Amino acid sequence: MTAPRKTPIWKEISRALRADIAEKIYTEGDKLPTEAELAARFGVNRHTVRHALKSLIEDGLLRSRRGAGVYVTAAPTDYPIGRRVRFHQNVLAGGQTPQKRILHIDHRPASDGEAQALKLPLRAPLVVYHGISLADDHPIALFSSHFPAELLPGMADALRETSGVTEALKRCGVSDYTRISTRISARIATATQANHLHTQEGAALIYTTGVNVDPDGTPVEFGQTWFAADRVTLTFDSPD
Amino acid sequence: MTAPRKTPIWKEISRALRADIAEKIYTEGDKLPTEAELAARFGVNRHTVRHALKSLIEDGLLRSRRGAGVYVTAAPTDYPIGRRVRFHQNVLAGGQTPQKRILHIDHRPASDGEAQALKLPLRAPLVVYHGISLADDHPIALFSSHFPAELLPGMADALRETSGVTEALKRCGVSDYTRISTRISARIATATQANHLHTQEGAALIYTTGVNVDPDGTPVEFGQTWFAADRVTLTFDSPD
Repeated sequence: MTAPRKTPIWKEISRALRADIAEKIYTEGDKLPTEAELAARFGVNRHTVRHALKSLIEDGLLRSRRGAGVYVTAAPTDYPIGRRVRFHQNVLAGGQTPQKRILHIDHRPASDGEAQALKLPLRAPLVVYHGISLADDHPIALFSSHFPAELLPGMADALRETSGVTEALKRCGVSDYTRISTRISARIATATQANHLHTQEGAALIYTTGVNVDPDGTPVEFGQTWFAADRVTLTFDSPD
Repeated sequence: MTAPRKTPIWKEISRALRADIAEKIYTEGDKLPTEAELAARFGVNRHTVRHALKSLIEDGLLRSRRGAGVYVTAAPTDYPIGRRVRFHQNVLAGGQTPQKRILHIDHRPASDGEAQALKLPLRAPLVVYHGISLADDHPIALFSSHFPAELLPGMADALRETSGVTEALKRCGVSDYTRISTRISARIATATQANHLHTQEGAALIYTTGVNVDPDGTPVEFGQTWFAADRVTLTFDSPD
């Protein structure tokens, strides 16, 4: 376990401003209050405010315009969940450029929960793809995707070559897939997750798990995703 | 803003055990490791472990059986989201007894976002119901429900008498309603929210907003809900 630690004031300010942006109190294109105004709001000096703003600029939430102040660059991106969940299309539909970055690709036996989700025998071999999803070069989510290795020979290589799940499945003969169920919870970011997501330890993450099946109803993917809650809002429109 | 503070070790342990229960590493009916084993796992003394367990027992996640150890009482309750979202039925379906507790009921003008969600003129009068949702006497969510006051005369009194949204809407002539959209994010609990939810400041909350409409498509409720992520998992099954 991690030792208790004191949160520096600039991090608290940065967290409060992130929450304001997530709540759309400040939305895309808005000018933030001046450093002097923020210093008054938080009861700190301008140096501390500048430190907080710098961290948000580095994370792509704010942009500094020389002599004109600091502007909000990004409101949380809407991310529709439903029968056809496609990272690539979802991010494109939000007007951003999608990209996946491979962290590592494992071969290992399924845990009980993974085997159950994929309707596999206990300890069946899996290919597990750990990676980062980016929109316009900024990380928006971490994911672990679990594939049945025996059903999908060559999947690990296909993932290494394409980095995209849809394309890799296609190379393994799965031309289409649909989401049969999604479970949604929330987590707080660990230090490692925060580091990958360019956010802070203890930040709010949306945690989802889901199963995708091929047109015959055979599970082809069990996925876990941790979305940075200040960058993504899941949306669900009820069908008529 | 809150001052930075040191998290006591027992709270860190309690948080780690909550996460284990949320991840279903320990599920309903499981016996936890002994105090001695937990003390070894976390590198602390048994007194500290006992303090952490006591807080989880008070919150209803664990139960102590005299001389037999500590058992997990509750796995996160599944909470389906879809076209017909009903707190009462959802909790009953999970085998638990639902209850709503009124915190306070306000009359106030709509904010821009609230007016937009309810398709009302700017600053239209609202009835706002702040409350706590409980399952088997344990708090599982905080909510703020916003109703158009002019469309629903008598709504505040109906809520005070029934404490349930479905029943109060019925008394105001809305015999049925459906959810047209749900947005889902995550937040970390403030001190006040943690207090109401019997959890810890900084704990993960699932944050949802949604709009309900009457059979004519007129918005009758804009709701915000903060679910304790260690007690509720939102589920979404794709329609065929």
